[in-house]
Amino acid sequence: MSTELWYTERYEEHGAALSLRVREVLHREQSAYQTIEIFETEHFGTLMTLDGLVMVTDRDNFLYHEMMTHPALLAHPAPVRVLVIGGGDCGTLREVLRHPQVARVDQVELDERVTRVAERFFPELCERNSDPRARLHFQDGIAWVQEISPESYDAIIVDSTDPVGPAAGLFSREFYSACWRALGPQGILVAQSESPLLHAPLICQCQDRMATAGFETVDTLYFPQFSYPSGWWSATLGRKGISRDSFRPAAAHALEGLRYYHAGIQQAAMVPPAFLLRG
Amino acid sequence: MSTELWYTERYEEHGAALSLRVREVLHREQSAYQTIEIFETEHFGTLMTLDGLVMVTDRDNFLYHEMMTHPALLAHPAPVRVLVIGGGDCGTLREVLRHPQVARVDQVELDERVTRVAERFFPELCERNSDPRARLHFQDGIAWVQEISPESYDAIIVDSTDPVGPAAGLFSREFYSACWRALGPQGILVAQSESPLLHAPLICQCQDRMATAGFETVDTLYFPQFSYPSGWWSATLGRKGISRDSFRPAAAHALEGLRYYHAGIQQAAMVPPAFLLRG
Repeated sequence: MSTELWYTERYEEHGAALSLRVREVLHREQSAYQTIEIFETEHFGTLMTLDGLVMVTDRDNFLYHEMMTHPALLAHPAPVRVLVIGGGDCGTLREVLRHPQVARVDQVELDERVTRVAERFFPELCERNSDPRARLHFQDGIAWVQEISPESYDAIIVDSTDPVGPAAGLFSREFYSACWRALGPQGILVAQSESPLLHAPLICQCQDRMATAGFETVDTLYFPQFSYPSGWWSATLGRKGISRDSFRPAAAHALEGLRYYHAGIQQAAMVPPAFLLRG
Repeated sequence: MSTELWYTERYEEHGAALSLRVREVLHREQSAYQTIEIFETEHFGTLMTLDGLVMVTDRDNFLYHEMMTHPALLAHPAPVRVLVIGGGDCGTLREVLRHPQVARVDQVELDERVTRVAERFFPELCERNSDPRARLHFQDGIAWVQEISPESYDAIIVDSTDPVGPAAGLFSREFYSACWRALGPQGILVAQSESPLLHAPLICQCQDRMATAGFETVDTLYFPQFSYPSGWWSATLGRKGISRDSFRPAAAHALEGLRYYHAGIQQAAMVPPAFLLRG
């Protein structure tokens, strides 16, 4: 009988845990910022964790990466200049680069080692990293947004970790105000905003802070994501100078290779559960 | 330091597991059909398992029970006579009885002990069991549907366990044909159909079998459900003599006390992920 190896993430404050059976540990390193680990799981492909928390698995990352990208870019009438904050595994970057209208993507990730490890173990997610439209920067995303010239981007995607440690500032009103300033007269901001079941107050706070920062309309996108706490996740989207029903269906239909998102998801994903209906 | 107690459900064929931290074991019995266990969890309230599989937790059962009930009953123009197959915890029954149009509900559950244990440990789910419109029957649901007079019901809800053991027959074409016969000229069938992420072929099979059984249009409802495998669940709905856009919004708005479902969910929940778009 061989030993069973399991990776387990405990959601301590919710008294719950998710485990994935592991074939082997492929890589483990301590970067300047965090512990990066790579596992070969039995049924979810390759798994990356940061400080013990699931970041990405081969099997279900398409849900998160597609939903972080396509609803926001398709709601913008002409997304040419895009900024990704965080997103070190490059899965969001890959989705952004599916859009032919996009001429340039700046990706600002704090920890270069996350991207280098992803290039080695998640080649599929990194397959567009050498696209000439993509520029990878390894520095603090908050400082980047504060220092950039006003109206530099059409869309900003905040693909961050949980609101603790270095990522906490990415959930602040000040940061959203800096994003508003960095967006052109028509601009869209989308930020991952945790689990509707476990973190509903954070979602409301995120909506309120985006509104206070100047975004005229704010909606939250809801979608499944097995390997994140509760299996149900969200991203919150603020619009600047864009009407609430702005959507490019022809561009949505032209996207190929997607597994979750399609034009029908655009509105459906923005319908909140009854317990998050507001006003 | 006190001992930590965890309940764990392993999804063996997917190399994954969900765990909930437990304060104490409240009840354990072997019925004629299965092992029924009740746990007091730390953050998910009371938990019922059958043969080691999560059936219901206080914290998240509202998602499943609301979605098994309201989209189907609100798609029917006049749901007066309702049949629930399975549903021993009575959470679906409670949702059905919120509808003032319903004059009678037959609930046919194989294992009376599940209901008796639920009455003791889930009083909220069972709060409408004494409603004079409800009749509890403890016998085989497949035989019930085969033996009932044609056109006995307006809606049939199949709130079953997984398609193994006694519940396997509830996923067969023969059973769906018997349901079709048991429904009036206008009738609706809804059956739980497992996880989109883990069991997509079963969902397609369920759609195909309902269509073959005579249901003119078939749609699947997608919704989050943390404590079921993958955190993402589905129910498949077949319509007999009812148009695909049939919906009673005024009746939806009149429902009180719901936490997930509202009128906006009706269409949104029927939008499939791209990987389940068919035809």
